[in-house]
Amino acid sequence: MKNKVHCHIESSHHSEDFKALMKNRLSRIEGQIRGINRMIQEDVYCDEILNQMAAVQSALVSAGEKLLDAHIKNCVVEQIQGGRVEVVDELMTTIKRLIR
Amino acid sequence: MKNKVHCHIESSHHSEDFKALMKNRLSRIEGQIRGINRMIQEDVYCDEILNQMAAVQSALVSAGEKLLDAHIKNCVVEQIQGGRVEVVDELMTTIKRLIR
Amino acid sequence: MKNKVHCHIESSHHSEDFKALMKNRLSRIEGQIRGINRMIQEDVYCDEILNQMAAVQSALVSAGEKLLDAHIKNCVVEQIQGGRVEVVDELMTTIKRLIR
Amino acid sequence: MKNKVHCHIESSHHSEDFKALMKNRLSRIEGQIRGINRMIQEDVYCDEILNQMAAVQSALVSAGEKLLDAHIKNCVVEQIQGGRVEVVDELMTTIKRLIR
Repeated sequence: MKNKVHCHIESSHHSEDFKALMKNRLSRIEGQIRGINRMIQEDVYCDEILNQMAAVQSALVSAGEKLLDAHIKNCVVEQIQGGRVEVVDELMTTIKRLIR
Repeated sequence: MKNKVHCHIESSHHSEDFKALMKNRLSRIEGQIRGINRMIQEDVYCDEILNQMAAVQSALVSAGEKLLDAHIKNCVVEQIQGGRVEVVDELMTTIKRLIR
Repeated sequence: MKNKVHCHIESSHHSEDFKALMKNRLSRIEGQIRGINRMIQEDVYCDEILNQMAAVQSALVSAGEKLLDAHIKNCVVEQIQGGRVEVVDELMTTIKRLIR
Repeated sequence: MKNKVHCHIESSHHSEDFKALMKNRLSRIEGQIRGINRMIQEDVYCDEILNQMAAVQSALVSAGEKLLDAHIKNCVVEQIQGGRVEVVDELMTTIKRLIR
C-alpha cells in the first residue's frame, strides 16, 4: 500500500463514540450473517433467508456510508486543505467500488 | 409468515454439498466483517477499510445469488410445476429487495 | 443468439396495456436523460444534475423490474411448465446482470 | 433549491471537452432506451431486452461516476479550500442516492 495518501491526524483519527457506534453496527451484522448460516443449515425456507440477506446487504451499505462520511470529513477535507488534491482520485476509486 | 408458499421437498431441501459451500462462504464473510471491525478500532486508514467493505458487499451479493439460484431451481420450479404460480409474486418481491 | 430458449406464446406476448405502460415509462426516462444532457451543456450546478441522474437510475431499475416480472410470468412459467427448466439458468444470468 | 452551496467558478465550469464527452455518452444512452422501447413494441424476446436494460443501467452509472468525479474535482475541492466544508454533507447525500 505504499504511495497511499495518509491521514495526518494523530493517534486516534476517529472519536471513541464513532468507534463504539461502528463496533455496535458491525457486531450486529456479524450476528445476522451467523444467523443466515444457521438458517441454511436448518433448512429454513429460502425466501425468508434471502430477505434476511437483503437486510444484511442494506445494513452493510449503511455502515459503509457512515465510514465514508467520516473518512471524507476527517481525512479527505484535511488532505484537500493541505493541498494534496490527489486524494480525490483515491476517493473516486473507492466510491466506484461502493457504487457497483 | 403465514400464507407463505412452502417448499414441499422433504427433510433436507439443499444437498450437504451446497450447505457446506454456503457455510464456508458465510464464515469467510463473517471473518471479514470481524476484520473490518478490528481495523476501525485500530485506526487503520479508512480508504483501506472502505475497500475491504466493498469486497465484503460483493461477497455477500455473490452468496445471495448462489442461494437465489438454488431457491429457484429447487423450490420455485417445483411450485410452478405444481401449479402454484403465486410463488412468482413472492419471488419478484425478493428479487426487488436484492436489486435495490 | 441461437440456442436461446424462446417464448412460445404466439404473435404478441405482452398485452397492449403492458406495452403502452412501458412505452410511457421509457419515453419519460428518455426525456429525463435529454434533460440531464441539456443541464450539463448549460452549466447547471452538478449536484442538481447528479440527483437527477440518481432519479433516472431508479426509474430505469423500476422499469427493468416491471419487464422482469412480465418475463417470468409470461415466458419463464410457460417454459418451466413445458419441462424446459434450462430457462432458469438463462434467467439467473439475467438477474445477476440486473443485481450488479 | 435555495441554501444550496454554489460552485464559484465563473461562466463555464466544465471544459468543452468534458461537455462533448458527456453529450456523446448521454446521446448514446438515449438511443439505447429508444431501442429498448422499440424492442418491447415489436415483441423481441424479453431476456434480450433485459440484458439491454442491464447494459444501459451500467452505462448510466458510469456516466454518473464521470460527472461525480468532475463535480468533486471542480466544485467540491474549491469549496473545501475556501472553507465551506458544509459542501461535504451535500456531497454525501448525493453519493448515498447514487449508491442505492
